[in-house]
Amino acid sequence: MGASLAGALRGKCARVVGVARRADVIETALARGFVDEGTTDLLAGVRDADVVVLSTPVRVIIQQLAEIAPHLRPGCVVMDMGSTKKEIVAAMDRLLPEHVQPLGAHPMCGKETSGIDVAEITLYRERTFILTPLPRTSPETVALGVALAEAVGAKPLVLDADRQDYIVGTVSHLPYLLACALVATADATTSKDPAAWKIIAGGFRDTSRVAGSDVTMMLDILLTNREHVLAAVRECETQLRRLSDLVADGDEGALRDALTAIRNTRKEMFP
Amino acid sequence: MGASLAGALRGKCARVVGVARRADVIETALARGFVDEGTTDLLAGVRDADVVVLSTPVRVIIQQLAEIAPHLRPGCVVMDMGSTKKEIVAAMDRLLPEHVQPLGAHPMCGKETSGIDVAEITLYRERTFILTPLPRTSPETVALGVALAEAVGAKPLVLDADRQDYIVGTVSHLPYLLACALVATADATTSKDPAAWKIIAGGFRDTSRVAGSDVTMMLDILLTNREHVLAAVRECETQLRRLSDLVADGDEGALRDALTAIRNTRKEMFP
Repeated sequence: MGASLAGALRGKCARVVGVARRADVIETALARGFVDEGTTDLLAGVRDADVVVLSTPVRVIIQQLAEIAPHLRPGCVVMDMGSTKKEIVAAMDRLLPEHVQPLGAHPMCGKETSGIDVAEITLYRERTFILTPLPRTSPETVALGVALAEAVGAKPLVLDADRQDYIVGTVSHLPYLLACALVATADATTSKDPAAWKIIAGGFRDTSRVAGSDVTMMLDILLTNREHVLAAVRECETQLRRLSDLVADGDEGALRDALTAIRNTRKEMFP
Repeated sequence: MGASLAGALRGKCARVVGVARRADVIETALARGFVDEGTTDLLAGVRDADVVVLSTPVRVIIQQLAEIAPHLRPGCVVMDMGSTKKEIVAAMDRLLPEHVQPLGAHPMCGKETSGIDVAEITLYRERTFILTPLPRTSPETVALGVALAEAVGAKPLVLDADRQDYIVGTVSHLPYLLACALVATADATTSKDPAAWKIIAGGFRDTSRVAGSDVTMMLDILLTNREHVLAAVRECETQLRRLSDLVADGDEGALRDALTAIRNTRKEMFP
């Protein structure tokens, strides 16, 4: 996501500097034209920046905020692209000096693949780009975040950090755990039968796709959004039990009504 | 699925006769070249057939077996394409006269759309085509089913009916109920927030896709595979609880191990 953002921003701001841990990633970023320059030295990379965008797993972002805080120039805007926002904006508020402007962000364009090899500058086009300002974030900084999102073709959406965490707990983190539970179920039961592997069809493939997501990233997300994730799981267990009780009872009319309402809801979600 | 099979078989057998309830569907099938001839009269359609393939929801198939049974010519092979097989093969055994050969079938190419407008003769290519013979099914009839599957480009797989129902209960019917529970959860919680609709991303879309499946078809599937479906749901509840307990406990090492194992399993399933 970092390389894709860099590439999409290049030419639209004075200079794009890429920071990565590995030198070969910098070389690839330069070769693919994603950045104007690159470095493996985080502090050197952020020292002269007007805008810093941290694009690492949530808890690494929090560590990096502490690392870079003393080295940022006055007026610098610090953004991030972590999937959960409450802990990050709290860390921004706590760790960044007063002369630095914080702005949480979460573009909705995650894929189950990551790394510079799958980077593409069209990644953000038409995607919702959530911005979560802090009380101390100035209107000018929010406007800059909106302009940055629009510059990469995304649709900015300004939200309270806790409200965003509540929503993504249900619409993003819950699907991940369901996909994982589905794969674990197949693994614990039918996968012992070699025929099962030939039978697994499109429905299973789609429903389980996000179980292939990067584990370190998802671990950070789940552990920094525990309360909302667990509430979403509990609600989903209730819904699943309601449906399976109707199946067990053979209550055809009620089951038809429930499945029809759900089908209609999904059609409204994705017309 | 019926029109797609007819179109894929046309030219590969003496004559393909399509039967539909509505005359306009027959007209479309003729216009699109899916059938050599068509009729809305089920009994007229099957009377001279060497092979009959019933392509309706599971419980309609069982009704139609009773309807057509007295009108089939000796040596006729009766197949179906219902998603659950135990109740269908039992009905075949009970309802079809001795001079008729029964063979259950279930091609793994379901889509969440149905009807002749989405029919395509490439639907079966490279898909697993399950065949579930009865004790009374002759080797010649099984060979005919294998040849039919191969003629439409599919990969035949001969299985016991109960074993197929067990496997599809986990790899097909469980994903449907999980997708439905996910949509119902979002509907019961976050969908009240208009921002949620802008945030719903690819993960939710994929994980919930099969919740858009045809309700009548799924109702028949769930109610004719109740035992296996409920066992799969119970196992999945256990797996989901195991994962959410690890999230609740914040047991990072154990959670990482569990998610990594699941990710690796899914990679093996879809290399």
